[in-house]
Amino acid sequence: MTTVFFAAGAHQWAKYEPHLGAALSRAGVTADIVTEAPDPAAIDYIVFAPGGLIEDFSPFVNTRAVLSLWAGVERVVGNTTLTQPLCRMVDPGLEKGMIEYVTGHALRHHLGMDRFITATAPHWDQKQPPLAQNRKVAVLGLGELGAACAHALARIGFDVHGWSRSPKTLEGLTTASGPDGLDAVLKGAEIVVLLLPDTPATENVLNDRALAQLAPGAAIINPGRGPLIDEGALLDALDSGQVGHATMDVFRQEPLPPDHPFWHHPNVTVTPHIAAWTRPDTASGVVAENVRRGEAGAPFLHLVDRVTGY
Amino acid sequence: MTTVFFAAGAHQWAKYEPHLGAALSRAGVTADIVTEAPDPAAIDYIVFAPGGLIEDFSPFVNTRAVLSLWAGVERVVGNTTLTQPLCRMVDPGLEKGMIEYVTGHALRHHLGMDRFITATAPHWDQKQPPLAQNRKVAVLGLGELGAACAHALARIGFDVHGWSRSPKTLEGLTTASGPDGLDAVLKGAEIVVLLLPDTPATENVLNDRALAQLAPGAAIINPGRGPLIDEGALLDALDSGQVGHATMDVFRQEPLPPDHPFWHHPNVTVTPHIAAWTRPDTASGVVAENVRRGEAGAPFLHLVDRVTGY
Repeated sequence: MTTVFFAAGAHQWAKYEPHLGAALSRAGVTADIVTEAPDPAAIDYIVFAPGGLIEDFSPFVNTRAVLSLWAGVERVVGNTTLTQPLCRMVDPGLEKGMIEYVTGHALRHHLGMDRFITATAPHWDQKQPPLAQNRKVAVLGLGELGAACAHALARIGFDVHGWSRSPKTLEGLTTASGPDGLDAVLKGAEIVVLLLPDTPATENVLNDRALAQLAPGAAIINPGRGPLIDEGALLDALDSGQVGHATMDVFRQEPLPPDHPFWHHPNVTVTPHIAAWTRPDTASGVVAENVRRGEAGAPFLHLVDRVTGY
Repeated sequence: MTTVFFAAGAHQWAKYEPHLGAALSRAGVTADIVTEAPDPAAIDYIVFAPGGLIEDFSPFVNTRAVLSLWAGVERVVGNTTLTQPLCRMVDPGLEKGMIEYVTGHALRHHLGMDRFITATAPHWDQKQPPLAQNRKVAVLGLGELGAACAHALARIGFDVHGWSRSPKTLEGLTTASGPDGLDAVLKGAEIVVLLLPDTPATENVLNDRALAQLAPGAAIINPGRGPLIDEGALLDALDSGQVGHATMDVFRQEPLPPDHPFWHHPNVTVTPHIAAWTRPDTASGVVAENVRRGEAGAPFLHLVDRVTGY
């Protein structure tokens, strides 16, 4: 009997209880799911989320893997008590939600929808947008989510340029890497999508220097992580018009404090971290597959590299 | 020498002059393009747009085809002097623009963007939309534009149901036809896209009976033709909440008169007939290809059926 400790907390358990046991059965794993661990040495797998039941992983001496319910692991990867293999969540439902958010907001900015949505008086002005094929879009971050969104934007027709820290080739897309590659990808971009992980190397990647590369009036879409943006530099660029609009779903502090300037800037749209959620039905299947792999001695999916932090 | 009479008017000629001659050359046609026709019998092909130079086609006794620059031909198809073959414009640039408009506004309604775009005070409410796969979208009209948009919406993941007057099969899509099929396609739909031609058979297709089939709070997107909608029925459905929002690009009278209720309704978005335009560069290629076909004795592209009207 395999013992899975659901340590993500009672709030999450209410959502996962209807799905996780069934997913483990479907994966062919006979498992006992527990929501407390009086004997940590008896735990084979930990299902984890920040703010849940575990801060100290050291008593879990026989645990084969810690399976995060979150895609971003920045809140746990630096935990020095965590010596077990750590797996990120890469949920097909989350990926679909992210693609819908990113393509929707990219098309919103491309088509200039806001002026029609917020119009207060009749105004028949037939200024037409260009085709998406004439609109350069920069996608920063080419992990599972970034690559999936880059492909979706390219299928719609956008001129997509992707950037990642280390070189990466994606079929049908222009990609670049490293500091010089970043300038090339941002140069003249009219829409920028941020889907990088939050690591010391990516903090403030969108700083004043990066923002200055963009086409004047560019739109920023950040469904990635709050610290990717230098907030002061972005506000300056919004005020100067170098950035025309920023749509942000993630912030350094969440919920975004009511007095934060992003709430009150006319050219900022705040969405409350809803771009992509791990969905209990689809995510349970991913957890179950990793338990199955652990039991079979097969390599885990979405194993986190503890050096790069993702 | 083939003589092409550009009869769409001076305003259009200013846009087409840089493209049409080059497109004819590329198609291998040696043609003389004229913008007046003192001798109508000398004209081989007419490039036509409503409001241009021709009302009476009868003097053009040797003309092999009338090539419309418009996709919709309702303003010319009933002209009894027009006995020559009439071809609609099916412009790849227009199709791309239409796909971008339709997918953009469908995602806008799907994601509930408007509440974030128009928010006036901080409000962190993490109500999450379903995935597109759980959102039924009805596409009425499966001609070139309708089919292209239906496929694009399906690629994003929407549960697309297409309807056409006569039966039509589209790979990967659920389709239906005729009056019973219309009810099945509309039943429970949360987003409706209108891309039918404007004919006596399609006028007011979206009437009170059709609107009652939809999921409560459904969104209407009309980039097709104004007369497809029974305006009184739509306003009633907006006021009752049966329809949550209508985004309309086309109207019975254009520009939409300033006192029209659509301008002033809080749940209506008016866009000024910008969803899809014929683009002179890409459209010139279509005109040139039809001239080439006429000269080669090959069947014309996009020939209008004078009985059905499209």
